[in-house]
Amino acid sequence: MVLEIIDQEINPYVDQWEAEGLFPAHRIFKILGSAGFLGVNRPVEYGGLGLDYSYSVAVAEELGNIRCGGIPMAIGVQTDMATPALSRFGSDELKTEFLLPTIMGDKVACLGVSEVGAGSDVSSILTKAVKKGDEYVINGGKMWTTNGTQADWMCLLANTSEGPPHRNKSLICLPMNLPGVHIARKIDKIGMRSSDTAEIFFDDVRVPCKNVIGQEGMGFTYQMLQFQEERLWAVANILTMMDNIIQETIDYTRQRKIFKMPVLYHQSVHFKLAELQTEVELLRSLLYNATALYIKGNDMTKLASMAKLKAGRLARELGDSCLQFWGGMGFTSDVLVSRFYRDSRLLSIGGGADEVMLGIICKYMDMLPKK
Amino acid sequence: MVLEIIDQEINPYVDQWEAEGLFPAHRIFKILGSAGFLGVNRPVEYGGLGLDYSYSVAVAEELGNIRCGGIPMAIGVQTDMATPALSRFGSDELKTEFLLPTIMGDKVACLGVSEVGAGSDVSSILTKAVKKGDEYVINGGKMWTTNGTQADWMCLLANTSEGPPHRNKSLICLPMNLPGVHIARKIDKIGMRSSDTAEIFFDDVRVPCKNVIGQEGMGFTYQMLQFQEERLWAVANILTMMDNIIQETIDYTRQRKIFKMPVLYHQSVHFKLAELQTEVELLRSLLYNATALYIKGNDMTKLASMAKLKAGRLARELGDSCLQFWGGMGFTSDVLVSRFYRDSRLLSIGGGADEVMLGIICKYMDMLPKK
Amino acid sequence: MVLEIIDQEINPYVDQWEAEGLFPAHRIFKILGSAGFLGVNRPVEYGGLGLDYSYSVAVAEELGNIRCGGIPMAIGVQTDMATPALSRFGSDELKTEFLLPTIMGDKVACLGVSEVGAGSDVSSILTKAVKKGDEYVINGGKMWTTNGTQADWMCLLANTSEGPPHRNKSLICLPMNLPGVHIARKIDKIGMRSSDTAEIFFDDVRVPCKNVIGQEGMGFTYQMLQFQEERLWAVANILTMMDNIIQETIDYTRQRKIFKMPVLYHQSVHFKLAELQTEVELLRSLLYNATALYIKGNDMTKLASMAKLKAGRLARELGDSCLQFWGGMGFTSDVLVSRFYRDSRLLSIGGGADEVMLGIICKYMDMLPKK
Amino acid sequence: MVLEIIDQEINPYVDQWEAEGLFPAHRIFKILGSAGFLGVNRPVEYGGLGLDYSYSVAVAEELGNIRCGGIPMAIGVQTDMATPALSRFGSDELKTEFLLPTIMGDKVACLGVSEVGAGSDVSSILTKAVKKGDEYVINGGKMWTTNGTQADWMCLLANTSEGPPHRNKSLICLPMNLPGVHIARKIDKIGMRSSDTAEIFFDDVRVPCKNVIGQEGMGFTYQMLQFQEERLWAVANILTMMDNIIQETIDYTRQRKIFKMPVLYHQSVHFKLAELQTEVELLRSLLYNATALYIKGNDMTKLASMAKLKAGRLARELGDSCLQFWGGMGFTSDVLVSRFYRDSRLLSIGGGADEVMLGIICKYMDMLPKK
Repeated sequence: MVLEIIDQEINPYVDQWEAEGLFPAHRIFKILGSAGFLGVNRPVEYGGLGLDYSYSVAVAEELGNIRCGGIPMAIGVQTDMATPALSRFGSDELKTEFLLPTIMGDKVACLGVSEVGAGSDVSSILTKAVKKGDEYVINGGKMWTTNGTQADWMCLLANTSEGPPHRNKSLICLPMNLPGVHIARKIDKIGMRSSDTAEIFFDDVRVPCKNVIGQEGMGFTYQMLQFQEERLWAVANILTMMDNIIQETIDYTRQRKIFKMPVLYHQSVHFKLAELQTEVELLRSLLYNATALYIKGNDMTKLASMAKLKAGRLARELGDSCLQFWGGMGFTSDVLVSRFYRDSRLLSIGGGADEVMLGIICKYMDMLPKK
Repeated sequence: MVLEIIDQEINPYVDQWEAEGLFPAHRIFKILGSAGFLGVNRPVEYGGLGLDYSYSVAVAEELGNIRCGGIPMAIGVQTDMATPALSRFGSDELKTEFLLPTIMGDKVACLGVSEVGAGSDVSSILTKAVKKGDEYVINGGKMWTTNGTQADWMCLLANTSEGPPHRNKSLICLPMNLPGVHIARKIDKIGMRSSDTAEIFFDDVRVPCKNVIGQEGMGFTYQMLQFQEERLWAVANILTMMDNIIQETIDYTRQRKIFKMPVLYHQSVHFKLAELQTEVELLRSLLYNATALYIKGNDMTKLASMAKLKAGRLARELGDSCLQFWGGMGFTSDVLVSRFYRDSRLLSIGGGADEVMLGIICKYMDMLPKK
Repeated sequence: MVLEIIDQEINPYVDQWEAEGLFPAHRIFKILGSAGFLGVNRPVEYGGLGLDYSYSVAVAEELGNIRCGGIPMAIGVQTDMATPALSRFGSDELKTEFLLPTIMGDKVACLGVSEVGAGSDVSSILTKAVKKGDEYVINGGKMWTTNGTQADWMCLLANTSEGPPHRNKSLICLPMNLPGVHIARKIDKIGMRSSDTAEIFFDDVRVPCKNVIGQEGMGFTYQMLQFQEERLWAVANILTMMDNIIQETIDYTRQRKIFKMPVLYHQSVHFKLAELQTEVELLRSLLYNATALYIKGNDMTKLASMAKLKAGRLARELGDSCLQFWGGMGFTSDVLVSRFYRDSRLLSIGGGADEVMLGIICKYMDMLPKK
Repeated sequence: MVLEIIDQEINPYVDQWEAEGLFPAHRIFKILGSAGFLGVNRPVEYGGLGLDYSYSVAVAEELGNIRCGGIPMAIGVQTDMATPALSRFGSDELKTEFLLPTIMGDKVACLGVSEVGAGSDVSSILTKAVKKGDEYVINGGKMWTTNGTQADWMCLLANTSEGPPHRNKSLICLPMNLPGVHIARKIDKIGMRSSDTAEIFFDDVRVPCKNVIGQEGMGFTYQMLQFQEERLWAVANILTMMDNIIQETIDYTRQRKIFKMPVLYHQSVHFKLAELQTEVELLRSLLYNATALYIKGNDMTKLASMAKLKAGRLARELGDSCLQFWGGMGFTSDVLVSRFYRDSRLLSIGGGADEVMLGIICKYMDMLPKK
């Protein structure tokens, strides 16, 4: 069913949206939401299907069949990046106002965590939400915000007190049409071109205090939890893309000849593809194990971080290696492999860079210097 | 329980056996056999525990705690390399004569597949078993035979007819005390030193035809099946060793200082260890997935080949990388990491070299030139 | 002096030309030609400076300071890819007509070797030049032609007879304004965007036989020679770019902070940059040695192929690694490192792909199967 | 001439000396010394040939033809590790007593720098030389001392005052037959087995103050200078070995068949060998450039460190990769490649570990945190 939507409503238009630097999020999300795919593991009472997290992973895998990285990422923001904390910790009122329409595809969500001076280092964000009466007055800005130019609301991380950096932050549901929300620019990226990435400023934006998700001061903790689903989602999504890139490369090199022999039949080519597929299977196994662990209620932070780390590195190696086998065609914008090469480069940077993943793994292995 | 035997009966003597170039297989196997560990997934009627293959994997993992690679390998030959075909396809009579005492630890088994000119390329072996009456007369030789100087019997692959190379071979249970079996020499290896590796010649050796395992002519096919268990076993076994090497390296580098700081606290050190552990977890997940698939009765040849390929490569990288962090100590024979460095180099060569694994994977991915 | 031209006439406009997908080759080449930089090692009588090849290498290095890969490549085509054979083997008449104005910057040159089905495998080109009277009638097409939409003439490789593929080709000076030369399209590439790459068709194009460079039938041999200068040129050019990327990355990461410390001061960052610089120095030394060898009149094909192979691989690793240290900025189109990441990906593909270089090296090491 | 000595006096006995764990340093050094090869770049008045440093590099390259790593290393200690500082800064009296007989091959030298807690981190050594009258009284110990059990004298680095660690050390010529010099043990190593490596203790060893090389307190500085020659020497030496390993691997795989084809003719094999040879040529070029720079009187510390770093890494990769192509034979002690695999592992550890080289390069690139 997801595949049908992809084949009919998305893939025929991807080249156009990539060229335009934007895809129509509202239209596509409505289609996906109506079919139930924006909340497979969300509660039934808010429009979800109430299934376990493995179904979300399965949808992420299916979305990997979209012929670009930008649109799946935008969907992932909607389903697994901006909403897990709201779904788990938000008040009924908040969920009715923000979660329900997001799952239905009526509202586009974005996640406001990264800032100009605080990408992977979430604890050092500067955006402030100062309580005045029953409102917060928000000042600051966010950077690298996926869906940022089209979003109806943002899951915003802001400093709500002066305390220690891991205890002074809150997640806030912020309507994007409030006075003082300025979308400064759409960032020009080397890949993920159909997905809009915004820089956003807040200038005395007023939002009711009840828009805080869960407990005030718990935002950093919630965001760290939320990151785990984001990371597994990203892994699941890229796995299908990597399968597809390998398969298209096999198909292409089987018919392209060099030195009177199909490119594929050169041992250095098929051995390399076998190695890459081996790495893909390794990653898939780890994803499934981490997912199974998560469903059983365990902490899968270490495994999710390992999977995210590996996914980013493997995608870079796989994209680079496969592109090579396409020869000159690989350097054109006419083939999927070159789009993957550009798009997937983001995976090692966004959602916690490789170095942040390594830091988390080190922490779990108790290898970091004691302060 | 396995751990207890390792700690009491094996590890205290490993250094000595490594220096001597031999461990007492009969004594150790009897201890393990009495405790039931030489046939956890073999039929109860032949002394096994009748459990599924995942228990064999679990034992292989435990055996990774032995402080060398040679002894686990010797045990693996006994449990998962020389006996799977016999257990699955052998006659009751053969199983009573060879399988039962092997599982009980009363007989030491070896596997006679590789030859001087046919290591990874099994189909090109030259050893012949020519039928004369109700006996085979065997001539030829085997190379790289683990347990070869101590074994009571060999699971021998020989050409029993002139047919095409994949249809003319048989597996034969060959007592090693028969006239004409000559153990030419113990091979001097750079690692796995406590395990004896023999070159063996057959000079008109006569063995009853009923010693053929299963059907005559099916030897190549049986051996290919048998290889799958061998490969998963090897992966399971090395996983524990890799965990241990990482952990010992963490412990050592935590207390060893350089430039006034523990070696471990240098980022290039703990980041590298985190990467290696990530690769170990990837491999572990793949092993478990392949095992689960196998237990359900599926063909896991592709996954087993991938796991074996990765295990060999990872072991080389891990041994080499960790050794570096031990500084000069890593270059001495006094530490486990240097033994692992030497021992584990075999994994990419034995049991089907990396290049053979790549060939199998390529075949399953349909990437090989059509003949 | 080259630097001055780059700083005043080129770098201020690079962003614009990259966006437009074309730079004004005639204007820029005239500036460079007037200053003498389009023929430093060409004969004085045809406008060159008559210096040895090391000066050409030095200019290629200087051109690496242009803030994109496309423009240097276009210049390199003019100076070291389309003209070496003409300069060495061409008749005086041909050199006066084509070499002189190319060196002066009055004519833009392109090289017509690659075809749709024959990129790195030059011997299998299909374009034919059939002799009719004192003219050739040319049919076929060329692909991946740098400068192709702007060029005044092409150094064309075509089959001029039916003989064996290494003996039946000729290099021909082909004016691009002849009837029957059709520029089919400008190819949309993932990098090198300011450089136009054309697909060109020939439909009964007539050119005088005297436009053949040197001897008829020697085209393949001449082109193989010509490739050596192309390859050293490309190595020299990318070396400076790699130096610059490393230096800009050092500068940027010194001021960008993460976890309260400059990114640069994390050991995994500065160690990686030190490794990359090490590889750059290795390549630089090889380039200089190959150049010295060449100037002395030796065959440097093996060393040039090695240098080209290494340059392509190192550029990919260096671009990818440095981009990572720029975080989100690295994924934008606003920084040099991301342009380098896209542009330099071509180096392993164009001018003889990595696999072709490996084949040449193997041939020189006498490792290829005997036919 | 060096080759002749190697072929006649060394290579025929290498296997025996490797098995015995010791080669007869006095006998071999006398032969080399008589032929003039222990001091090609040392002053004529002390028995040297008075040639420039490139001749020392040439000898180091020739010594790479010895069929093990241990003996060349022992010679290198004699010629380029224990004596550069003495030759450059020592008094005439010291040079007559220690340098002359070392160059003549009458005395065996060793270098006493590393200690148990101070390998690559030279500044933290603990051995003390306390001045009493006109003698030093030395206490402490040295570790990893090549030639240590056979040496007649040691170039000892000791703390001669309490000052800052880079200013309080001196190099001292220490006869090894003095009372209080205890050779604690010969260390059991995984490679370099024909070379003895000692742990040595000093218990109130008394040595005249005039045995200090150059200025007291300058020992750290002298040793850092001395390290540069050691490092270039090690690079030159391993280069020839790498050439030889590649060539022997080509020869062996050309005649060894798998799947009915010479191993060499599989593309993954010859492509890998071509890549390795490419890296070897890169390193050779860098060595020659660094040597040329050094001869002209320039600081080549950065280039020497880069070359040493690359040499260690390349040797590991090359040994590991080539061994693989030997199949089972590669895992035996019967072939040069497995000895190289074990021996060359030291290169990334000794003479300043890879991490120390990276640190030096970082310092030269100004990337280290400011204190």
